[in-house]
Amino acid sequence: MLTGLEHIGIAVEHLDLSIELWLKLTGGRLVHREIVAEQRVEVAVIEVGSLRIELLCATDDDSAIARFLKTRGPGIHHVALHSTAAQEDLNRLKAAGVGLIDEKFRSGAEGARIGFLHPRATGGVLVEVVERGGDQA
Amino acid sequence: MLTGLEHIGIAVEHLDLSIELWLKLTGGRLVHREIVAEQRVEVAVIEVGSLRIELLCATDDDSAIARFLKTRGPGIHHVALHSTAAQEDLNRLKAAGVGLIDEKFRSGAEGARIGFLHPRATGGVLVEVVERGGDQA
Repeated sequence: MLTGLEHIGIAVEHLDLSIELWLKLTGGRLVHREIVAEQRVEVAVIEVGSLRIELLCATDDDSAIARFLKTRGPGIHHVALHSTAAQEDLNRLKAAGVGLIDEKFRSGAEGARIGFLHPRATGGVLVEVVERGGDQA
Repeated sequence: MLTGLEHIGIAVEHLDLSIELWLKLTGGRLVHREIVAEQRVEVAVIEVGSLRIELLCATDDDSAIARFLKTRGPGIHHVALHSTAAQEDLNRLKAAGVGLIDEKFRSGAEGARIGFLHPRATGGVLVEVVERGGDQA
Protein backbone atom coordinates (compact mmCIF):
# COMPACT_ATOMS: atom_id res chain seq x y z
CA MET A 1 0.00 0.00 0.00
CA LEU A 2 1.19 3.52 -0.79
CA THR A 3 0.76 5.75 2.25
CA GLY A 4 2.02 9.17 1.17
CA LEU A 5 5.03 11.25 0.25
CA GLU A 6 8.32 9.95 1.66
CA HIS A 7 11.01 12.12 0.10
CA ILE A 8 11.97 14.26 -2.83
CA GLY A 9 15.22 13.61 -4.69
CA ILE A 10 17.30 16.49 -6.02
CA ALA A 11 20.13 15.97 -8.53
CA VAL A 12 23.10 18.13 -7.51
CA GLU A 13 26.52 18.88 -8.91
CA HIS A 14 28.34 19.55 -5.63
CA LEU A 15 27.22 17.51 -2.65
CA ASP A 16 28.87 19.45 0.19
CA LEU A 17 27.71 22.82 -1.10
CA SER A 18 24.19 21.47 -1.67
CA ILE A 19 23.97 20.01 1.84
CA GLU A 20 24.95 23.40 3.24
CA LEU A 21 22.40 25.20 1.04
CA TRP A 22 19.45 22.92 1.84
CA LEU A 23 20.20 22.84 5.57
CA LYS A 24 20.19 26.64 5.53
CA LEU A 25 17.03 26.92 3.42
CA THR A 26 14.90 24.32 5.19
CA GLY A 27 16.18 24.36 8.76
CA GLY A 28 16.35 20.56 8.50
CA ARG A 29 19.14 18.25 9.67
CA LEU A 30 21.54 15.92 7.87
CA VAL A 31 20.62 12.39 8.96
CA HIS A 32 22.45 10.14 6.51
CA ARG A 33 25.14 10.04 3.85
CA GLU A 34 26.01 7.02 1.73
CA ILE A 35 27.52 5.93 -1.56
CA VAL A 36 25.09 3.57 -3.32
CA ALA A 37 27.52 1.66 -5.54
CA GLU A 38 24.84 -0.09 -7.60
CA GLN A 39 23.45 3.26 -8.73
CA ARG A 40 26.79 5.08 -8.85
CA VAL A 41 25.48 7.87 -6.70
CA GLU A 42 26.35 9.51 -3.39
CA VAL A 43 23.24 10.32 -1.37
CA ALA A 44 22.84 12.80 1.48
CA VAL A 45 19.53 12.83 3.35
CA ILE A 46 18.16 15.93 5.05
CA GLU A 47 15.16 15.51 7.33
CA VAL A 48 12.61 18.34 7.40
CA GLY A 49 9.75 17.47 9.72
CA SER A 50 8.31 14.18 8.49
CA LEU A 51 9.73 14.61 4.99
CA ARG A 52 13.20 13.85 3.66
CA ILE A 53 15.21 15.55 0.96
CA GLU A 54 17.65 13.24 -0.85
CA LEU A 55 20.52 15.07 -2.49
CA LEU A 56 21.91 12.90 -5.30
CA CYS A 57 25.41 13.33 -6.68
CA ALA A 58 26.84 11.12 -9.43
CA THR A 59 29.98 9.12 -8.61
CA ASP A 60 30.43 8.11 -12.25
CA ASP A 61 29.95 10.01 -15.55
CA ASP A 62 27.68 7.32 -16.90
CA SER A 63 25.26 6.96 -13.98
CA ALA A 64 21.57 7.87 -14.29
CA ILE A 65 22.12 11.05 -12.24
CA ALA A 66 25.07 12.11 -14.42
CA ARG A 67 22.89 11.65 -17.52
CA PHE A 68 20.06 13.63 -15.89
CA LEU A 69 22.47 16.48 -15.07
CA LYS A 70 23.75 16.50 -18.64
CA THR A 71 20.31 16.68 -20.25
CA ARG A 72 18.23 18.65 -17.70
CA GLY A 73 20.79 20.31 -15.42
CA PRO A 74 20.60 20.19 -11.62
CA GLY A 75 17.16 20.21 -10.04
CA ILE A 76 14.40 17.98 -8.74
CA HIS A 77 14.91 14.43 -9.96
CA HIS A 78 12.08 12.42 -8.40
CA VAL A 79 9.35 12.18 -5.80
CA ALA A 80 9.13 9.10 -3.59
CA LEU A 81 5.98 7.55 -2.15
CA HIS A 82 6.15 5.44 0.98
CA SER A 83 5.14 1.84 0.44
CA THR A 84 4.34 -0.84 3.00
CA ALA A 85 5.27 -3.54 0.45
CA ALA A 86 7.17 -2.38 -2.62
CA GLN A 87 6.80 -5.48 -4.79
CA GLU A 88 3.07 -5.71 -4.09
CA ASP A 89 2.59 -2.05 -5.00
CA LEU A 90 4.61 -2.44 -8.22
CA ASN A 91 2.50 -5.48 -9.17
CA ARG A 92 -0.75 -3.64 -8.37
CA LEU A 93 0.25 -0.52 -10.33
CA LYS A 94 1.33 -2.62 -13.32
CA ALA A 95 -2.00 -4.47 -13.26
CA ALA A 96 -3.76 -1.07 -13.15
CA GLY A 97 -1.98 -0.08 -16.36
CA VAL A 98 0.61 2.27 -14.83
CA GLY A 99 3.89 2.01 -16.79
CA LEU A 100 6.87 0.91 -14.69
CA ILE A 101 10.61 1.32 -15.06
CA ASP A 102 11.23 -1.41 -12.47
CA GLU A 103 8.92 -4.41 -12.54
CA LYS A 104 10.98 -5.92 -9.71
CA PHE A 105 12.17 -3.84 -6.75
CA ARG A 106 15.88 -3.11 -6.38
CA SER A 107 18.06 -1.96 -3.46
CA GLY A 108 18.30 1.71 -2.59
CA ALA A 109 20.15 3.71 0.08
CA GLU A 110 19.80 2.43 3.66
CA GLY A 111 18.73 -1.00 2.42
CA ALA A 112 15.34 0.19 1.18
CA ARG A 113 13.36 -1.66 -1.48
CA ILE A 114 12.72 0.75 -4.32
CA GLY A 115 11.13 0.79 -7.76
CA PHE A 116 10.45 3.57 -10.25
CA LEU A 117 7.26 4.24 -12.19
CA HIS A 118 7.57 5.56 -15.70
CA PRO A 119 7.27 9.38 -15.95
CA ARG A 120 5.00 8.88 -18.98
CA ALA A 121 2.50 7.27 -16.60
CA THR A 122 2.68 10.01 -13.97
CA GLY A 123 2.45 13.30 -15.84
CA GLY A 124 6.19 13.74 -16.36
CA VAL A 125 7.11 13.25 -12.72
CA LEU A 126 9.58 10.45 -11.96
CA VAL A 127 7.91 8.63 -9.05
CA GLU A 128 9.72 6.16 -6.80
CA VAL A 129 8.03 3.62 -4.56
CA VAL A 130 10.08 3.02 -1.40
CA GLU A 131 9.68 0.42 1.32
CA ARG A 132 11.74 0.70 4.50
CA GLY A 133 11.91 -1.32 7.66
CA GLY A 134 13.12 -4.51 9.23
CA ASP A 135 11.20 -7.03 7.13
CA GLN A 136 13.59 -6.74 4.20
CA ALA A 137 15.83 -9.42 2.74
CA MET B 1 11.98 32.59 9.34
CA LEU B 2 11.86 29.53 7.08
CA THR B 3 10.55 26.51 8.98
CA GLY B 4 10.56 23.66 6.45
CA LEU B 5 8.97 22.21 3.36
CA GLU B 6 5.40 23.38 2.74
CA HIS B 7 4.47 22.01 -0.64
CA ILE B 8 5.70 20.86 -4.01
CA GLY B 9 4.23 22.31 -7.19
CA ILE B 10 3.68 20.13 -10.25
CA ALA B 11 2.95 21.58 -13.70
CA VAL B 12 0.20 19.53 -15.36
CA GLU B 13 -1.56 19.53 -18.70
CA HIS B 14 -4.93 18.15 -17.56
CA LEU B 15 -6.08 19.19 -14.10
CA ASP B 16 -8.93 16.71 -13.54
CA LEU B 17 -6.90 13.72 -14.72
CA SER B 18 -3.92 14.82 -12.62
CA ILE B 19 -6.03 15.23 -9.48
CA GLU B 20 -7.32 11.70 -9.97
CA LEU B 21 -3.80 10.34 -10.55
CA TRP B 22 -2.19 12.00 -7.50
CA LEU B 23 -5.09 11.13 -5.18
CA LYS B 24 -4.68 7.52 -6.25
CA LEU B 25 -0.86 7.51 -5.96
CA THR B 26 -0.54 9.31 -2.64
CA GLY B 27 -3.72 8.42 -0.79
CA GLY B 28 -4.07 12.15 -0.02
CA ARG B 29 -7.21 14.29 -0.24
CA LEU B 30 -8.20 17.25 -2.38
CA VAL B 31 -8.48 20.25 -0.05
CA HIS B 32 -8.64 23.23 -2.38
CA ARG B 33 -9.14 24.33 -5.97
CA GLU B 34 -8.82 27.88 -7.24
CA ILE B 35 -8.09 29.97 -10.31
CA VAL B 36 -5.34 32.48 -9.47
CA ALA B 37 -6.07 35.15 -12.06
CA GLU B 38 -2.88 37.13 -11.47
CA GLN B 39 -0.78 34.11 -12.39
CA ARG B 40 -3.16 32.73 -15.01
CA VAL B 41 -3.17 29.35 -13.40
CA GLU B 42 -5.71 26.96 -11.91
CA VAL B 43 -4.42 25.32 -8.75
CA ALA B 44 -5.62 22.12 -7.05
CA VAL B 45 -4.16 21.26 -3.65
CA ILE B 46 -3.83 17.68 -2.40
CA GLU B 47 -2.90 17.18 1.24
CA VAL B 48 -0.68 14.18 2.06
CA GLY B 49 0.08 14.10 5.77
CA SER B 50 1.64 17.46 6.64
CA LEU B 51 2.69 18.15 3.07
CA ARG B 52 0.72 19.58 0.16
CA ILE B 53 0.96 18.89 -3.54
CA GLU B 54 -0.07 21.82 -5.73
CA LEU B 55 -1.16 20.82 -9.22
CA LEU B 56 -0.73 23.79 -11.55
CA CYS B 57 -2.60 24.10 -14.84
CA ALA B 58 -2.24 27.12 -17.14
CA THR B 59 -5.42 29.11 -17.91
CA ASP B 60 -3.64 31.11 -20.60
CA ASP B 61 -1.05 30.19 -23.27
CA ASP B 62 1.30 32.92 -22.14
CA SER B 63 1.37 32.18 -18.40
CA ALA B 64 4.54 31.06 -16.61
CA ILE B 65 3.16 27.50 -16.30
CA ALA B 66 2.29 27.37 -20.02
CA ARG B 67 5.84 28.46 -20.86
CA PHE B 68 7.27 25.85 -18.46
CA LEU B 69 5.15 23.12 -20.12
CA LYS B 70 6.34 24.23 -23.55
CA THR B 71 10.03 24.15 -22.69
CA ARG B 72 10.29 21.33 -20.08
CA GLY B 73 7.06 19.39 -20.40
CA PRO B 74 4.86 18.44 -17.43
CA GLY B 75 6.62 17.66 -14.16
CA ILE B 76 7.77 19.15 -10.89
CA HIS B 77 7.76 22.94 -11.13
CA HIS B 78 8.82 24.16 -7.70
CA VAL B 79 9.35 23.39 -4.02
CA ALA B 80 7.88 25.73 -1.40
CA LEU B 81 9.32 26.51 2.02
CA HIS B 82 7.06 27.68 4.82
CA SER B 83 7.85 31.17 6.02
CA THR B 84 6.63 32.96 9.14
CA ALA B 85 7.21 36.34 7.42
CA ALA B 86 7.72 36.24 3.66
CA GLN B 87 9.03 39.78 3.13
CA GLU B 88 11.51 39.46 5.99
CA ASP B 89 12.80 36.16 4.61
CA LEU B 90 13.14 37.60 1.10
CA ASN B 91 15.07 40.57 2.52
CA ARG B 92 17.32 38.31 4.58
CA LEU B 93 18.04 35.94 1.68
CA LYS B 94 18.82 38.87 -0.62
CA ALA B 95 21.21 40.32 1.97
CA ALA B 96 22.85 36.87 2.20
CA GLY B 97 23.53 36.98 -1.55
CA VAL B 98 20.78 34.55 -2.65
CA GLY B 99 19.39 35.67 -6.02
CA LEU B 100 15.65 36.42 -6.01
CA ILE B 101 12.98 36.49 -8.70
CA ASP B 102 10.64 38.43 -6.39
CA GLU B 103 12.21 41.08 -4.20
CA LYS B 104 8.71 41.96 -2.93
CA PHE B 105 6.15 39.28 -2.07
CA ARG B 106 3.09 38.83 -4.26
CA SER B 107 -0.29 37.15 -3.76
CA GLY B 108 -0.64 33.41 -4.26
CA ALA B 109 -3.51 30.95 -3.96
CA GLU B 110 -5.58 31.12 -0.74
CA GLY B 111 -4.31 34.65 -0.05
CA ALA B 112 -0.77 33.53 0.77
CA ARG B 113 2.22 35.84 0.52
CA ILE B 114 4.69 34.26 -1.86
CA GLY B 115 8.06 35.02 -3.44
CA PHE B 116 10.38 32.97 -5.64
CA LEU B 117 14.15 32.58 -5.30
CA HIS B 118 16.18 32.31 -8.47
CA PRO B 119 16.95 28.69 -9.51
CA ARG B 120 20.52 29.79 -10.23
CA ALA B 121 20.88 30.44 -6.48
CA THR B 122 19.41 27.11 -5.39
CA GLY B 123 21.05 24.46 -7.56
CA GLY B 124 18.47 24.53 -10.36
CA VAL B 125 15.46 24.09 -8.07
CA LEU B 126 12.79 26.79 -8.26
CA VAL B 127 12.14 27.57 -4.58
CA GLU B 128 9.10 29.48 -3.33
CA VAL B 129 8.81 31.14 0.06
CA VAL B 130 5.21 31.03 1.30
CA GLU B 131 3.60 32.73 4.28
CA ARG B 132 0.06 31.79 5.29
CA GLY B 133 -2.20 32.84 8.11
CA GLY B 134 -4.40 35.57 9.41
CA ASP B 135 -1.82 38.35 9.70
CA GLN B 136 -1.90 39.13 6.01
CA ALA B 137 -2.97 42.36 4.32
